[in-house]
Amino acid sequence: MPEQKKKKAVCLLSGGLDSSTCLAYARREGYECYALSFDYGQRHRIELEAAARVAADLGAVQHLVAPAPLRLFGGSALTAEIEVPKGRSGEAMAAGIPVTYVPARNTIFLAFALAWAEVLGAEDIFIGVNAVDYSGYPDCRPEYIEAFERMANLATRAGVEGRMRLRIHAPLLRLTKADIVRLGRELGVNFALTHSCYDPGPGGKPCGACDSCVLRRKGFQEAGLEDPLDTA
Amino acid sequence: MPEQKKKKAVCLLSGGLDSSTCLAYARREGYECYALSFDYGQRHRIELEAAARVAADLGAVQHLVAPAPLRLFGGSALTAEIEVPKGRSGEAMAAGIPVTYVPARNTIFLAFALAWAEVLGAEDIFIGVNAVDYSGYPDCRPEYIEAFERMANLATRAGVEGRMRLRIHAPLLRLTKADIVRLGRELGVNFALTHSCYDPGPGGKPCGACDSCVLRRKGFQEAGLEDPLDTA
Repeated sequence: MPEQKKKKAVCLLSGGLDSSTCLAYARREGYECYALSFDYGQRHRIELEAAARVAADLGAVQHLVAPAPLRLFGGSALTAEIEVPKGRSGEAMAAGIPVTYVPARNTIFLAFALAWAEVLGAEDIFIGVNAVDYSGYPDCRPEYIEAFERMANLATRAGVEGRMRLRIHAPLLRLTKADIVRLGRELGVNFALTHSCYDPGPGGKPCGACDSCVLRRKGFQEAGLEDPLDTA
Repeated sequence: MPEQKKKKAVCLLSGGLDSSTCLAYARREGYECYALSFDYGQRHRIELEAAARVAADLGAVQHLVAPAPLRLFGGSALTAEIEVPKGRSGEAMAAGIPVTYVPARNTIFLAFALAWAEVLGAEDIFIGVNAVDYSGYPDCRPEYIEAFERMANLATRAGVEGRMRLRIHAPLLRLTKADIVRLGRELGVNFALTHSCYDPGPGGKPCGACDSCVLRRKGFQEAGLEDPLDTA
């Protein structure tokens, strides 16, 4: 009996906890995964090495790193010379959109994913955004993801010709960080390969104090698991 | 009396007839224009020189050329090694989406425009798409533009915080090519500075036979005007 052909999916992969878990989720759902990362002039460019490790470890068919010139526009602590805030409480994070927000980042990333999906003939795009324990970014909310999906289905040749119906999957959208850690573990994500810190020290060592480090620590603590990066 | 501060607009500019007319339109509407072009590995990269000339001629405050790695994904005659079709009739063009369609191109371009608009504090983005005398691209239709605008207002910090309401202006959407030629002339566009051909010869000479050349010629003929590029 011939093997059934797997469906292809484009999976956005930063190399962090969330996107790695999202990639593992897509794989478990039976997709052949095409991982897509971006070199956008981020301070924490070292996350691209984590993305490559994770893509290989989770059996992605292909891993592309697309250069995306977000630095050209400035406006974020993640790309420009603005200081990354440290030691913020959950309340402080919940109070507003932080300076680490990169204007239109997920829109740009999803737009590239859409281009690749159309070329591959993939109907599914996975993105590890999360609207619970997150940094307050507007482009991580369910209404944003739905609006993007709607637009995407009007944007492409395949959508217009009725040959495919694109779906943006955000399986982590309503999970807490602890839920994500538990799910990642269940799906076999090797957390030691990931990278989350916005402002890493030499050798990629997490600063432990930026929003991303704080959220990650909270997630592992609440899940009752040890983060391998803490003991590395 | 102090001069009233002009509103800023990001204007997508390829250097062709339509986007040049669109930029001139935004200027006449009183906007301070920030022109944005893309180097996406297009065969007709020479259009970027036209874009720079047009941006300067029409008084854009700034002109940025963003590298956008669309070639990475392939899938189009404009970026990959697929032949650009020549000598097609209007009926042939109307029959379907041609191989010169670049997957998700306008979505990617508008996503970058959105990033720049947010950084500039601009509420207005101009794009010269046209749904009448066009090549049948899905991302040139009014329903697509509306869906993008809706998504964009959910994507940005400024939108979420209620500080601004983004508008995607597509003033050429319902014009014929002849209307666009007439409008461009009225607005003072110097057509000799523009470039439309998808497959130019040495020195940027238009091939005269690709869809873009055919549509341009038809536009000038119907408007009863001479195209300065024909006699150059």
